[in-house]
Amino acid sequence: MPRPHVAFIAVPTPERSFALASIAPLPDASANPAIAAQAEILARPMTENRRMADAIRALAIDAVEKAKSGHPGMPMGMADAATVLFTKFLKHDAADPRWADRDRFVLSAGHGSMLLYAWLHLSGHAGMGIEDIKQFRQLHSVAAGHPEFGEHPAIETTTGPLGQGLANAVGMALAERHLAARFGKSLVDHRTWVIAGDGCLMEGISHEAASIAGHFKLSKLTVLWDDNGICIDGDVGLTSSDDVLKRFLSYGWAVKRVDGHDPVAVEKALEAATRSKKPTIIACRTIIGFSAPSKAGTAGSHGSPLGGPEAAAAKEALGWTAAPFEIPEDIKASWEAAGRRCAGTRRSWLKRLANHPQKAEFERAMAGKLPEGWHEAAAAYRAKLAEDKPKIASRVASQRALEVLVPAIPEMIGGSADLTGSNNTNVKGIPVLTPENYAGRYVHWGIREHGMAAAMNGMALHGGTIPYSGTFLVFADYLRPSLRLAALMRQRVIHVLTHDSIGLGEDGPTHQPVETLASLRAIPNLYVFRPADAMETAECWEIAVARADGPAVLALSRQNLPALRAEAGENKSARGGYVLAEASGPRRATLIATGSEVQLAIAARETLEAEGIPTAVVSLPCWELFALQDESYRAAVLGDAPRIGIEAALPFGWDRWLGSDATFIGMAGFGASAPAEDLYRHFGITADAAVAAVKRKLG
Amino acid sequence: MPRPHVAFIAVPTPERSFALASIAPLPDASANPAIAAQAEILARPMTENRRMADAIRALAIDAVEKAKSGHPGMPMGMADAATVLFTKFLKHDAADPRWADRDRFVLSAGHGSMLLYAWLHLSGHAGMGIEDIKQFRQLHSVAAGHPEFGEHPAIETTTGPLGQGLANAVGMALAERHLAARFGKSLVDHRTWVIAGDGCLMEGISHEAASIAGHFKLSKLTVLWDDNGICIDGDVGLTSSDDVLKRFLSYGWAVKRVDGHDPVAVEKALEAATRSKKPTIIACRTIIGFSAPSKAGTAGSHGSPLGGPEAAAAKEALGWTAAPFEIPEDIKASWEAAGRRCAGTRRSWLKRLANHPQKAEFERAMAGKLPEGWHEAAAAYRAKLAEDKPKIASRVASQRALEVLVPAIPEMIGGSADLTGSNNTNVKGIPVLTPENYAGRYVHWGIREHGMAAAMNGMALHGGTIPYSGTFLVFADYLRPSLRLAALMRQRVIHVLTHDSIGLGEDGPTHQPVETLASLRAIPNLYVFRPADAMETAECWEIAVARADGPAVLALSRQNLPALRAEAGENKSARGGYVLAEASGPRRATLIATGSEVQLAIAARETLEAEGIPTAVVSLPCWELFALQDESYRAAVLGDAPRIGIEAALPFGWDRWLGSDATFIGMAGFGASAPAEDLYRHFGITADAAVAAVKRKLG
Repeated sequence: MPRPHVAFIAVPTPERSFALASIAPLPDASANPAIAAQAEILARPMTENRRMADAIRALAIDAVEKAKSGHPGMPMGMADAATVLFTKFLKHDAADPRWADRDRFVLSAGHGSMLLYAWLHLSGHAGMGIEDIKQFRQLHSVAAGHPEFGEHPAIETTTGPLGQGLANAVGMALAERHLAARFGKSLVDHRTWVIAGDGCLMEGISHEAASIAGHFKLSKLTVLWDDNGICIDGDVGLTSSDDVLKRFLSYGWAVKRVDGHDPVAVEKALEAATRSKKPTIIACRTIIGFSAPSKAGTAGSHGSPLGGPEAAAAKEALGWTAAPFEIPEDIKASWEAAGRRCAGTRRSWLKRLANHPQKAEFERAMAGKLPEGWHEAAAAYRAKLAEDKPKIASRVASQRALEVLVPAIPEMIGGSADLTGSNNTNVKGIPVLTPENYAGRYVHWGIREHGMAAAMNGMALHGGTIPYSGTFLVFADYLRPSLRLAALMRQRVIHVLTHDSIGLGEDGPTHQPVETLASLRAIPNLYVFRPADAMETAECWEIAVARADGPAVLALSRQNLPALRAEAGENKSARGGYVLAEASGPRRATLIATGSEVQLAIAARETLEAEGIPTAVVSLPCWELFALQDESYRAAVLGDAPRIGIEAALPFGWDRWLGSDATFIGMAGFGASAPAEDLYRHFGITADAAVAAVKRKLG
Repeated sequence: MPRPHVAFIAVPTPERSFALASIAPLPDASANPAIAAQAEILARPMTENRRMADAIRALAIDAVEKAKSGHPGMPMGMADAATVLFTKFLKHDAADPRWADRDRFVLSAGHGSMLLYAWLHLSGHAGMGIEDIKQFRQLHSVAAGHPEFGEHPAIETTTGPLGQGLANAVGMALAERHLAARFGKSLVDHRTWVIAGDGCLMEGISHEAASIAGHFKLSKLTVLWDDNGICIDGDVGLTSSDDVLKRFLSYGWAVKRVDGHDPVAVEKALEAATRSKKPTIIACRTIIGFSAPSKAGTAGSHGSPLGGPEAAAAKEALGWTAAPFEIPEDIKASWEAAGRRCAGTRRSWLKRLANHPQKAEFERAMAGKLPEGWHEAAAAYRAKLAEDKPKIASRVASQRALEVLVPAIPEMIGGSADLTGSNNTNVKGIPVLTPENYAGRYVHWGIREHGMAAAMNGMALHGGTIPYSGTFLVFADYLRPSLRLAALMRQRVIHVLTHDSIGLGEDGPTHQPVETLASLRAIPNLYVFRPADAMETAECWEIAVARADGPAVLALSRQNLPALRAEAGENKSARGGYVLAEASGPRRATLIATGSEVQLAIAARETLEAEGIPTAVVSLPCWELFALQDESYRAAVLGDAPRIGIEAALPFGWDRWLGSDATFIGMAGFGASAPAEDLYRHFGITADAAVAAVKRKLG
């Protein structure tokens, strides 16, 4: 398909690209062919859409100038297309931006945050006044540098790290299909819209996300690609020769290419998207920094203020005469009318909800409250565990816990990145979620950890679902950028990460986490659970599903673990750490361990006690919860006796619990390929080693 | 294009997929349509290629049976195609598997490691005898569960984490083009071959890598895709509807589809690939676990032993009558002849090398030795720094160091994931590496951190290049799986990670690392540098480039930092930590800081000293090197006085240096969007806070 009318600069010479990269102004605007294209667009007859879009442009220019930092280029380029979306398609009511059946709008190119803030302000949302816009990028402002979930109710997700928003949107669209299947179209029937940039589409996550969307036939997902031909280092052609639309065709998407400055063309394309049986991507050919007299069409408009004269000239080119941060009344009125365009639709929906037989259940699910009875079921299961004392891998224990929780909590939607049989994430009788059966509750995500985790974030953000996943612990690295965002956004997503140490055996060091636990424990707001037996696994699962304000990871063993707890009353894991076995007399040593190594501590204690050395064993299934306990509890648990830490991982981070004169039994580097028992012996992670360490300590 | 002859099972019902996933045998082989296709293939006239391929199959079956774990399905499926590659195309001499101008072979689907080991054994490589094969997956075996770089000289890279090998190969092919441009075709003229599975192609990294390969027109790269239609959870159709070849067309690749069990078809396709002007992917339609009577064509043959009866029946179906681990002499002879097929080619090359004017330079570069003179240039630069004492951001200091190092070390090839102007990774006068100029030494990687890092691993593995990159520190998460492999393989890749704290300011928490330093310090073998000023930045760069056996990260500031060091003799950063400013009397406090916070420690010390409190400042630019010093040095540096740690990051890991009764001034959670100075004040990371902390400590 020929690119319409905008002849962009050819691949720049290195010198030029570096000049662009360091944001030097172009010396000669006449050498920039985007300028001629821009002139043609500016010469078109003025439209309502253009005037409304110019209000976005003006605010973006003003806010970035005032903040002395920010990204004006994207909002200026995409304002025309976005205005069509906001005023003609997006089902949204400014009076209630959290309306459950609203369309979701995701600004995947999050650096263009002023596009979002300008729209929220113009369309009359509470909490985004002009003073907020003036505080763009300042401390405590709702108008942060990138859109931050939680700062304003209309911000659907935190974006900035490229490609994440696109993948979140896939999860939102999947959640919509699922909830529509569960509650019916009268309650759940909305679309998901994304604005994405070249960066989003270059990132690998875009492949995983687009492939998932195509496979699941998420026809209500539409992506507007800001196809401006410019990235930070210069022309996109400098780094990429992809035929992006052909790529999306290969995923089973519908594709379209339009002049992004032509509102009629954009409207037609969006209209077609609403009728498509496939997800749609629309390449909106735009000029980045549209209206800037010399920086338009260059990386110079991407990520820094235009500068006073260029900003003034841009407004002049638009015919925009209002003072900074001022919006002509008629334009503001048009925007506010657009903001309430769906008020009637929302009222009708509220009426339908009021009369709906599943009203209470829908509201409960969307509020993220767990259903009655779940905890009783979990408690009964734990009571049974106390009796049965099964010797099973914690991944199997996790599956047994899921067999209780998943039927009891209809929001739970499981899945695995193609390791179902290894992660034990499936539950008998729970149907698979497929394009033919969106009511299913188990997702075969494919070998796409990153897309899975980001889509799960989107599902959680959408509301009405509690997603959990599975992969190997070591592959947490593949999904880490999304896990970080779950932590930042405090979303309830749960990752079942099995094969959590050298205990996985023969697959070797590429598959054996040694640093992974530490790297996850370093993430704020994330609970990292490493349960020691079936009982602790059940406890950790209960905490994870009940935690509405943050993500959790369960690090689980491949190998069998003996039952270490015989009583089921209190959820001991809820304190993060506790004395599993007290010393028979005044403590002379404290063995502190997690997960599969707690059994070694228990075995070592037996030997030591038999030799007259009173020894306590502390299990630390969740460091983050333990850190939240008051200091006296922690001191009592950890005790004054010499401490020995045992974990089949690197010691990084353990000093916090062990103190200065500590001994640690664990790994010193990467693992190796061999049967698990050989590896534990080889690396000296044994009960004998713990006994010897205590004796050395005690001299 | 119609798929040849193999009618695979339709999307299984959930029950069946879980049955597959848990590796239960198929109850009824007649329900498996792959069996009929297999029968047709087995009925074809026997060929030399089949017999040789069957030797691979037999060894894969035997080794996995003996190890009681492993992945027989892929070697059994791909043996026919791989045999064509190994015996007719791969330029390789078993007598010298490290021959510099050999073709590179990358088994991206690393779980099929027995394919590689069987080939190495059969073709007569030293160090892969039948006893090694029998030790498959056992402790200390060269035949590890996944191919491990360093275990055998013919293993080009460590694979297993899916997609990495493919992206490594892109880097190898890029290095080949670059070195061919540098040294000429008479020394450097080889191809890169990859066997990849569905998993490799589902992973996001495949998008980034394939896009890079297409953009750079890496026509000497050929991927054989094991298109077996099966992943672990069941049929690929369960999780993916991609048209993979159409996708690769969108990247500018040549594509082909063949019957992977037809050696003539495979040979034709490989032949075409050698003439292609583009990288080529060949979809080899295969039957996973080919020859297994009931598990062929199912996930049941993927990741566990076939089991005795199935294994025996598979061999019977092949007409393979030799005892386990035995190879009929004629087949072994054919394989050994194939292994030496290119002996003459290598001898000719050696002659060319012997007479080549750049012989010494080529050998030096390929050996990874730095050229003479580099260190003198670096020392002269540091002497100048001691005089100039520039107040610059450490990212700018890094650029100045690069302006010395890159011209002095012709192996250094820089780049950035589209943040050149922010990472300051470019050097004036160094040309960009483009498809038109492979001699260039700066790569615009695009917004593809993961593909960049994995390709850099491939460049380092190829030899003759020292790749360094750039992105923001927080986006280390996007490239982490490849960084882990660089550490595991001990490859010299250097990542310039700028904007290393809240000091980046307004972009906010998505862009502000708080846990990232800890998460990187947790990786074994990785040096994480966080220099405090231009001098330390120069020192850290010197250490990083001189370190031939491992990767390094430089965490660098966006904001300006004052010069703290006025002498240039000793490389103080080489000890990882040192006393930057000793107390004027017996130490009453020690302030320990890194990077941009060292200046705060110095300012606090001034105040404290002025108030009569002798205070030392310790700079810790590299924890890993500090940990390597002897204990007495560390104790002397850290001192006995109360210790206060200062770093604009979370405290995770700091206890190691601070001891039990420590104070830490840093972050407690995620950052925020605001100007940098406001953030430092807001989060209380100031010299005043350090002064107050010392006073509190001292009561």
